[in-house]
Amino acid sequence: MATKPGIPKGTRDFSPAEVAKRQYIIAAIKHHFETFGFQPIETPSFENSDTLMGKYGEEGDRLIFKILNSGNFFFDKKKLEMPASLDELLVNSSETINKEQLIELNKFTARISEKALRYDLTVPFARYVVQHQNDIEFPFKRYQIQPVWRADRPQKGRFREFYQCDADVVGSTSLWQEVELVQLYDNVFSSLGLNGAVIKINNRKVLSGIAEVIGAKDKLIDFTVALDKLDKIGEDGVKKEMLEKGITEEAIAKVQPLFNFTGSISEKLAKLEELLATSAEGLKGVEELRFICDNVMAIGMNKSELDLDVTLARGLNYYTGAIFEVTAPKEVAMGSIGGGGRYDDLTGIFGLKNMSGVGISFGLDRIYLVLEELNLFPDTVTEATKVLFINFGDKEALYSMRAIAALRSAGIKAELYPDAAKLNKQFTHADRRGIPFAVLCGGEEVDTATYKIKNLASGEQQTVDLDELITRLG
Amino acid sequence: MATKPGIPKGTRDFSPAEVAKRQYIIAAIKHHFETFGFQPIETPSFENSDTLMGKYGEEGDRLIFKILNSGNFFFDKKKLEMPASLDELLVNSSETINKEQLIELNKFTARISEKALRYDLTVPFARYVVQHQNDIEFPFKRYQIQPVWRADRPQKGRFREFYQCDADVVGSTSLWQEVELVQLYDNVFSSLGLNGAVIKINNRKVLSGIAEVIGAKDKLIDFTVALDKLDKIGEDGVKKEMLEKGITEEAIAKVQPLFNFTGSISEKLAKLEELLATSAEGLKGVEELRFICDNVMAIGMNKSELDLDVTLARGLNYYTGAIFEVTAPKEVAMGSIGGGGRYDDLTGIFGLKNMSGVGISFGLDRIYLVLEELNLFPDTVTEATKVLFINFGDKEALYSMRAIAALRSAGIKAELYPDAAKLNKQFTHADRRGIPFAVLCGGEEVDTATYKIKNLASGEQQTVDLDELITRLG
Repeated sequence: MATKPGIPKGTRDFSPAEVAKRQYIIAAIKHHFETFGFQPIETPSFENSDTLMGKYGEEGDRLIFKILNSGNFFFDKKKLEMPASLDELLVNSSETINKEQLIELNKFTARISEKALRYDLTVPFARYVVQHQNDIEFPFKRYQIQPVWRADRPQKGRFREFYQCDADVVGSTSLWQEVELVQLYDNVFSSLGLNGAVIKINNRKVLSGIAEVIGAKDKLIDFTVALDKLDKIGEDGVKKEMLEKGITEEAIAKVQPLFNFTGSISEKLAKLEELLATSAEGLKGVEELRFICDNVMAIGMNKSELDLDVTLARGLNYYTGAIFEVTAPKEVAMGSIGGGGRYDDLTGIFGLKNMSGVGISFGLDRIYLVLEELNLFPDTVTEATKVLFINFGDKEALYSMRAIAALRSAGIKAELYPDAAKLNKQFTHADRRGIPFAVLCGGEEVDTATYKIKNLASGEQQTVDLDELITRLG
Repeated sequence: MATKPGIPKGTRDFSPAEVAKRQYIIAAIKHHFETFGFQPIETPSFENSDTLMGKYGEEGDRLIFKILNSGNFFFDKKKLEMPASLDELLVNSSETINKEQLIELNKFTARISEKALRYDLTVPFARYVVQHQNDIEFPFKRYQIQPVWRADRPQKGRFREFYQCDADVVGSTSLWQEVELVQLYDNVFSSLGLNGAVIKINNRKVLSGIAEVIGAKDKLIDFTVALDKLDKIGEDGVKKEMLEKGITEEAIAKVQPLFNFTGSISEKLAKLEELLATSAEGLKGVEELRFICDNVMAIGMNKSELDLDVTLARGLNYYTGAIFEVTAPKEVAMGSIGGGGRYDDLTGIFGLKNMSGVGISFGLDRIYLVLEELNLFPDTVTEATKVLFINFGDKEALYSMRAIAALRSAGIKAELYPDAAKLNKQFTHADRRGIPFAVLCGGEEVDTATYKIKNLASGEQQTVDLDELITRLG
């Protein structure tokens, strides 16, 4: 026998049970997206390379999967002039590439590849909005649940193909959107049975304010990264790290309240207001946070918690207002299971200015692992077939098939064992498949228009008519 | 403003209404797949090139989208030796490529590309079965609904990215599977409201029998293609074409009954039995067809028709038993909306012998067009948000948001207009979105804990409490 075939690294096959569990999560997300008025769109798996390249930074460009042009034009001298220097580009794998070689490589790649697999759902969404702007009624609330591809080095929990589940609103700067997005997170996670997911919120303007106060915009990331370690290394440790990163003692002193940044959200907001008193932008951020948090609290949350976290600095390159991140309940060491924020210029890259957007994303793979770890998938999710009809031969099988058709019409998952195999083999099949009931129709049942139903767990069996059979299995 | 961005030819964006309609069809297909005991799997969008190449013929290989290897190894001399003759491969676009050039191209492509987008769901399924054979309980009934990609020349109704919806059973030769697959087609199309979809059935062994009788295996396609034109060009026209294709008069005389191949399925089977009396394989095919048709009829069909069509010769390269094709009701000129058949050696290509399978596929895009043309999509399918709360300012908005949260918990799609814009603008938004109800909560409603609900079609409005609001919109 040949070697067993495999799949590319970083990709996955999903078994029936895995698909069922993933679909359970996706169904919950979709349901709440829709009750919130978000509408689905779908975009092609691959986009023109122009659309994607240059949108995710240099590292992002490298991680985009490029698709080789198809057909014979490869041979077309006019279209594809091999770079004179291509041979010079070839180096040994140990050598590193210089800037010029990279440019040559990109030029060559562009000649043989004009399409690329989407890297996220945000850039295709921006492209969609610009392309279809005349058909869209704004504000436009769209959701999109589709796979994306990244040529990242595969590792535990990081895949080269994975789903993103995004909801975004474009065309309105109203902070009620932020309020709703917090509720949306809460509704989805609560409906999945998750208690105590923490929805962390911050605001880019608050971060800018902090940068202003510490007098160093370029030190902001170093600052938040260090501050985030407060629990682990203590105030002295954090300050030591900040000093090492070149943040001055005076700057640190100015934001001393951040080292004891506890209390209720209102208390935190009051501290921030004082701290950022000299920064107009910072104060604007505090005001926005207050509007969002006050209203979320006034409407009420289900099973999640809202927290204000000034160390939250994700998406600093594109978020301009609110920043969200959701972490799994404390008992699971999983980290982020969702994130998002407001970006003031989503579609500018495609020439449509002044289109503010705000959106959130759900991390399907992480949520799956959390539900698995907390044993929160209902048993019914993976319940496949409800009843297997035992096959005693063609005459009895036909009789069974008529009942099976009636059961299926009633929405009951029913099957006939395809062959008149030995009883033992048929029952073993039911057992291995986890099918809870068997129905036996031999000559006697056919003659009396009855069905012998057997509970495979208890062994209990009874002879019933068709109506009763449907009732018992329904 | 920059030029509007676009998408690669042969691909599509789907708007909210289009996604909703596609999901409606997919939900119906999934529901019936599951009541029949099929279980979902998902495979990666790209496979190792080895898995796909050589499985679809030379033309197929050309139509497979190849993914460029990522990273810098492109520069790795050891891994990528440029073919010495690459420059010689470059020709002008008008020149054709010879065999040697093609081999060189394929060698070069293999060096820069090791992965490819899946071309169908059957080969990945075969790969899945072989790879996971020890975890699978056979017979294995799987379904798979995922996109596939083909570098076909795009044209009306033919896309480079499209969904396939497949159900297959592997590991059993029982003809009850074929019976069930006919029922499955009937159930899906009937539940979509389609009256008179024609499920055509044939059998590869019958075709082999005909080839035997006409004494020319290699003329079988010519024969069936010509015979299929009987309605259009008449018996004489068909015979003329057959003679031109090199089928002898004697051969044609032997299968004369096929020129008047009408009547009930039983009558057709009787004719075939007589015609194929000298072909053991042909008679076996007739016997199989009789088993399938008799049992389908005995169980009963819903809104579809079963027909025996000896000109049905799709998948002649791989089908070994039953062949299925479904055509849309006659009033729609759409052609095939589904097809399938039995293949005796699905997994042999990956080294697992003797694994018989039988499966069917649903053509999502075609079914969509048929339902659209016959106006069979229920209005509810594209119904988005049910009610828009008019925004009168932050205080009233908060009051509204509490009611909205209650409506959403009851599964009702509800939204707040995000800004306290002019009333006219807010109502226009509801109108353009097709939202049927508005709720107005001004100072008076807030003070009296009531809600003014307005039917936007009739203009009728009433003031109600929250319970009544939920009842009316539920």
